[in-house]
Amino acid sequence: MHKELLENIGEKELIQRLARFMPKNQVSDDCAFVKTKNKNLLINTDSLVENIHFNDDTISALDIGWKAVACNVSDLISSGCSNIIGVNIGLVVPSKTDWIWIKDLYTGINLALDHFGGLILGGDCSVGKEKVISITALGTQGDIKLRRNSCKPKEIILTTGIHGLSKLGLMIKSKTFFDSDISLTQSLIDSSLQKFCKPKLNPKFLKKLLKARPNKNVKTIGCTDSSDGLFQALLDLATESNCKAIIDYKKVPKHTNWPKGHRWDEYYYFGGEDYELVFSLPRKWANNLLCADNTITEIGYFIEGKASVEFKNCDNKNLIKSKSFSHF
Amino acid sequence: MHKELLENIGEKELIQRLARFMPKNQVSDDCAFVKTKNKNLLINTDSLVENIHFNDDTISALDIGWKAVACNVSDLISSGCSNIIGVNIGLVVPSKTDWIWIKDLYTGINLALDHFGGLILGGDCSVGKEKVISITALGTQGDIKLRRNSCKPKEIILTTGIHGLSKLGLMIKSKTFFDSDISLTQSLIDSSLQKFCKPKLNPKFLKKLLKARPNKNVKTIGCTDSSDGLFQALLDLATESNCKAIIDYKKVPKHTNWPKGHRWDEYYYFGGEDYELVFSLPRKWANNLLCADNTITEIGYFIEGKASVEFKNCDNKNLIKSKSFSHF
Repeated sequence: MHKELLENIGEKELIQRLARFMPKNQVSDDCAFVKTKNKNLLINTDSLVENIHFNDDTISALDIGWKAVACNVSDLISSGCSNIIGVNIGLVVPSKTDWIWIKDLYTGINLALDHFGGLILGGDCSVGKEKVISITALGTQGDIKLRRNSCKPKEIILTTGIHGLSKLGLMIKSKTFFDSDISLTQSLIDSSLQKFCKPKLNPKFLKKLLKARPNKNVKTIGCTDSSDGLFQALLDLATESNCKAIIDYKKVPKHTNWPKGHRWDEYYYFGGEDYELVFSLPRKWANNLLCADNTITEIGYFIEGKASVEFKNCDNKNLIKSKSFSHF
Repeated sequence: MHKELLENIGEKELIQRLARFMPKNQVSDDCAFVKTKNKNLLINTDSLVENIHFNDDTISALDIGWKAVACNVSDLISSGCSNIIGVNIGLVVPSKTDWIWIKDLYTGINLALDHFGGLILGGDCSVGKEKVISITALGTQGDIKLRRNSCKPKEIILTTGIHGLSKLGLMIKSKTFFDSDISLTQSLIDSSLQKFCKPKLNPKFLKKLLKARPNKNVKTIGCTDSSDGLFQALLDLATESNCKAIIDYKKVPKHTNWPKGHRWDEYYYFGGEDYELVFSLPRKWANNLLCADNTITEIGYFIEGKASVEFKNCDNKNLIKSKSFSHF
């Protein structure tokens, strides 16, 4: 197919083309303008870097666009956002990039915004050696603040959905899945690819949480998302709230066809990019929510003690000794 | 000096260190939280890429931090921002980066925020092949909207400060200044280095503009900044407002010791990164402002006609035939 490289399009033409993806057409002005109605805002920045967070062999530009929005929106949702306002996009691409890649990226960004809410507010595009998509998302703070530091001893630990699927999706896409003893079911493959390429998040979580709340005086609960994996989410909650998480290994929900074995625990707990919510609630609130939504599962509880994550009913020693993962 | 590479520090420790630069300590939570009081917001993203916008040979990490804030704040000011709320930082750095570089960068960012107003709200840090600093700045829209598309025929074109200095500063720093016939005065060298390393912007512009306004019904004026050079700023105003700029070459203010010659016109009009304001006003308003502030100069006027920039009293043919510049 005929390639149309950015270096042959020129900056002026590129800016005009990008402007077509922006309902507010900020690109033709210095700033984006946002109306707010006496609401408090949540703001989040997450960057995706080529060959670190994605590469063109394993994921399409359209799916990268979706995920670049999703990882930011997930942070807004996990802070109690009631309404996504929009995103600013800081894009860096090599001058040899084909225009179709940019077009697909922006199409994916707009598909995600159609799904989650919000508009492209503005941004800029620079030339660089490797692709970087740095997105800043803006949303409105809803009626409950969800914060990492607000878990309390005796509260029940819950999670939405199931983990590990995105990691498996990545392995399938990048052909690094090498466990020849295991044959994956089509259902597991489909769910994993879906989760890896177009994570759907939990945009209605705050509404459900508000509906299940037995005491309207409680305005803050402990919550984060599992963008860095379920284990890291639990450790972050424990660390920031300064209490100990006790996780019942047998209660942690897995895909029906998820294979058994220690390596599969590693994928499950440390895979990351699942964007499920991990949070804690007083018993009564937890029960109300569990009755109302069967995609939410109770997996443990917090106690007083050293900030840490402890497993019970678990014979996987690697998991028990786990520490957090570093990208550097 | 002993180097402390990021790959030896680890992500957890890095996040803790970065958190010390953030008054709101957002880094320990998923999102930054911003209180707003029924105000409309301005939001802007600008990215600086290593070897495109800066390199470690010509500018210190501290000055890069200052400039990364300044280029964003300049866009807010040129849209009529009355108050800077803060910035989110999307940082990408190689794992071999020395911690001291990051520390200096964040120190520079905070120095700039101390000067212009605002706080570090949050952000993230990722590993990548080359350094990218993508900043999203948030501010409050003031009582006049300054927009590129709001210039009108018969309005006077004005500019704050003088141009070309940042480009000369870059040439001095990168030792690419090669005009051996010219000896630069110390005053010009000092001003150029100051402008290149720590541009001061015009944070009080909106207040002065409001004070000089003869008719309170006018709520929008045409304005942009000269981040891509004075010529590009004029062309952007002409294009977005669909009228023709007539610039009186002899009225355009230059540094007292700015050398003569066609090449020096090129540095002056196309150098960029001066972050001065370029705007248009009705005659009476312009006169009031010119009386009140002698750093502001009248340089021309708009007329009906094809969106373009035309020079009078000018014998530099290159300048007259100029078009805009492309980074790609």
